[in-house]
Amino acid sequence: MITATVTGNVWSTRHVEGIPPGAFLEVQIDGTESRLVAFDVLGTGVGERVLIAQGSVASGWFTGPPPPVDALVIGSIDATPNK
Amino acid sequence: MITATVTGNVWSTRHVEGIPPGAFLEVQIDGTESRLVAFDVLGTGVGERVLIAQGSVASGWFTGPPPPVDALVIGSIDATPNK
Amino acid sequence: MITATVTGNVWSTRHVEGIPPGAFLEVQIDGTESRLVAFDVLGTGVGERVLIAQGSVASGWFTGPPPPVDALVIGSIDATPNK
Amino acid sequence: MITATVTGNVWSTRHVEGIPPGAFLEVQIDGTESRLVAFDVLGTGVGERVLIAQGSVASGWFTGPPPPVDALVIGSIDATPNK
Amino acid sequence: MITATVTGNVWSTRHVEGIPPGAFLEVQIDGTESRLVAFDVLGTGVGERVLIAQGSVASGWFTGPPPPVDALVIGSIDATPNK
Repeated sequence: MITATVTGNVWSTRHVEGIPPGAFLEVQIDGTESRLVAFDVLGTGVGERVLIAQGSVASGWFTGPPPPVDALVIGSIDATPNK
Repeated sequence: MITATVTGNVWSTRHVEGIPPGAFLEVQIDGTESRLVAFDVLGTGVGERVLIAQGSVASGWFTGPPPPVDALVIGSIDATPNK
Repeated sequence: MITATVTGNVWSTRHVEGIPPGAFLEVQIDGTESRLVAFDVLGTGVGERVLIAQGSVASGWFTGPPPPVDALVIGSIDATPNK
Repeated sequence: MITATVTGNVWSTRHVEGIPPGAFLEVQIDGTESRLVAFDVLGTGVGERVLIAQGSVASGWFTGPPPPVDALVIGSIDATPNK
Repeated sequence: MITATVTGNVWSTRHVEGIPPGAFLEVQIDGTESRLVAFDVLGTGVGERVLIAQGSVASGWFTGPPPPVDALVIGSIDATPNK
């Protein structure tokens, strides 16, 4: 997984079938200038730090026909880590 | 997913069996000089910004035998994002 | 697989369903400055060197519904290698 | 997918079971100095430009038990593109 | 696939269940300084050049439950290529 910070939303009115309920979030990967788009089902907002799983496991998490998403926000990272 | 801009078509008359109806589009990944080829079933044109899913989820989106495509245009990005 | 050294824990109280028992560990990939988060079921501690498998094989290792994890600590690397 | 140019063959007499009929081709990825090895079932020759699919979709294209190949030449790119 | 040269063994006494018979080999990817660990079932030795498949196809090659390995030595590259 990678850690990243949400920087915005990506809107796509015209898209293929099979996109589940949720949002496309643009995120910046921690420690880099790289950005990617992750699918979110948790209602995550801009500025939150998140944990993202990539590849077919993102799609495989959904029940029903696997949607064509290759990155999923699997959690919001706790603001005060109790290390 | 990644965001990218369509830069052209790739034509392949001699190819393996199992390529579904659609087009191979050359795209440039946003914020980079990198290019890749994504499969498109939406009739996307040169210059459009798109959202691309990569890996086996691209192939898994199709019904029937999974085609050998590892990148799929899953949506056209709205020109005027209503953030 | 890659070899890496565990540098800390990542805590996520608010997460999607289907995360199995275990821990999210932040690791630094050997020979690089790159970090990623791997799932651990071995009780690995900070400072240990580990072997990590990435991608869907990480998820496929689990019995039951495949969890949305894309990196798994598959072993602790022996401190005194008997090469 | 990526576009690449075939630069040579790779021969492996001693290999695991399950390699299908075809050839291992060394290719150079367009616009880079990077090389990889792709499996070819089209009889592609040195110097040809090809379209390559990577990952499990390469293996999944084959009928029968999935072979351990992670890159497949899915087409030869037309020399005179009719853009 | 990638070509690489075997540089050593990686030993892991404490590991998850489901690792098949074979060895973890450290390899250096040809033309780079990058290293990774590949699983070997061919008895390959240090110094040999090998062909490596990565991702879920490495795991899918095995019969029985798919092991958590994401890179497999699929062949030893012939020392005298008959190009």
